[in-house]
Amino acid sequence: MTYCVGVLLKDGIVMASDSRTHAGVDNFAQFCKMSVFEREDRAIVLLSSGNLAGTQAVITTLKQRGESTDGGPNVWTARTMFDFVTVVSDSVRDIGRRDRPSLEKNDLKFDASFIVGGQIKGEAPRLFRTYAEGNFVEAGSGTQFFQTGEAKYGKPIIDRVITPTTSLADAVKCVLVSFDSTMRSNLSVAMPIDLVQYENDQFKLNRRHRFEVGDPHFETLSRSWSEGVRSVFKQLPDVRWNK
Amino acid sequence: MTYCVGVLLKDGIVMASDSRTHAGVDNFAQFCKMSVFEREDRAIVLLSSGNLAGTQAVITTLKQRGESTDGGPNVWTARTMFDFVTVVSDSVRDIGRRDRPSLEKNDLKFDASFIVGGQIKGEAPRLFRTYAEGNFVEAGSGTQFFQTGEAKYGKPIIDRVITPTTSLADAVKCVLVSFDSTMRSNLSVAMPIDLVQYENDQFKLNRRHRFEVGDPHFETLSRSWSEGVRSVFKQLPDVRWNK
Repeated sequence: MTYCVGVLLKDGIVMASDSRTHAGVDNFAQFCKMSVFEREDRAIVLLSSGNLAGTQAVITTLKQRGESTDGGPNVWTARTMFDFVTVVSDSVRDIGRRDRPSLEKNDLKFDASFIVGGQIKGEAPRLFRTYAEGNFVEAGSGTQFFQTGEAKYGKPIIDRVITPTTSLADAVKCVLVSFDSTMRSNLSVAMPIDLVQYENDQFKLNRRHRFEVGDPHFETLSRSWSEGVRSVFKQLPDVRWNK
Repeated sequence: MTYCVGVLLKDGIVMASDSRTHAGVDNFAQFCKMSVFEREDRAIVLLSSGNLAGTQAVITTLKQRGESTDGGPNVWTARTMFDFVTVVSDSVRDIGRRDRPSLEKNDLKFDASFIVGGQIKGEAPRLFRTYAEGNFVEAGSGTQFFQTGEAKYGKPIIDRVITPTTSLADAVKCVLVSFDSTMRSNLSVAMPIDLVQYENDQFKLNRRHRFEVGDPHFETLSRSWSEGVRSVFKQLPDVRWNK
């Protein structure tokens, strides 16, 4: 499985992905699910979920199209984030058309979805989530974050903490706590965690870090959170019963 | 959907269920998913998950068998909790045999599973979880709780807090916080929450409460928890980046 999160804030974007892929518990591996495209007028990050074969093919296609000179919009030439996500969508559909018939013969589903965030000069930062069918949605003022994969364990903390005005530093901590909760409750999500922070109008990721197993910052955060939660718990008022 | 939890502790058992059933968002209703059987030598609680038609049929069958005098073991005569859960399992299979063919004609699955906890004189309290196929598992020293339905949102807090020696009062709070997190993140789980607390060797539920929407104890707990979590969050150390 996978766990990916993207959060759109007033000040910028925070995105993170885990690194575990598996086809059965006896066949798991580590792959980076984050792809970054940076150049002076744009900073774009994709987080991949789904079958690794499908998502790798989409990312590679995006890179190859970025190098081609046939004139169609690509990751380096798209005028808006919407135009770029449309390119992603087209790639997902191309790979889907190619792979789906062979997969379905073996009762497998084609599955490749992405969280796409970033900024292209001329507009504000934007955050999207694409589906395996190639259609996609954009985060707005009502919903500022997208999750893919094993999303449920880590959703309550995001629901409780994130608002549009949450600082980037707090959003980073919230996303890491969300990963910590998910990894404690589900074996199919695992470190390293790739995390990026993008500040409005920089056109360059101002923070990027891979949290490896045993990362001291992550361990401190995880321990502080656990201890804090247990201590809040200890201070909760006892339930007074009617019976 | 549904959310049910049963926790087995050194001092007893805590069990809780929500009350929402739905067949599509335009067709939801409120049903109690908790059934209690109490008599001088036993206290047994069942929490239902799955299709309401299936779980109601199983519970009604258990009640009717309890009134019959044909001599087979039933909820009032079973010598051990294992024997009673075997009766539950037989009922699940009977109803499944009856309903499955008609359901499958319309691409519906028969789904009726139960968390069964309690104590029969002569043995310690025990906690089981049955599946739609009628097989079942028992909680032990490694795993002290079972969840059914929308289990993921509320699992991290149980994973963090519950140990075999957690007090019944703390387990009650933990289960309520787990429901609160689930209901905030998922519309298909909703109040009222039915909650019971059973203390070893009482053969009678010593606490039983229905938390209705707006219940002041639940609201206080929910608010204290939210505020506590946010304040722990505020005190977390900032992540120090290498880049």
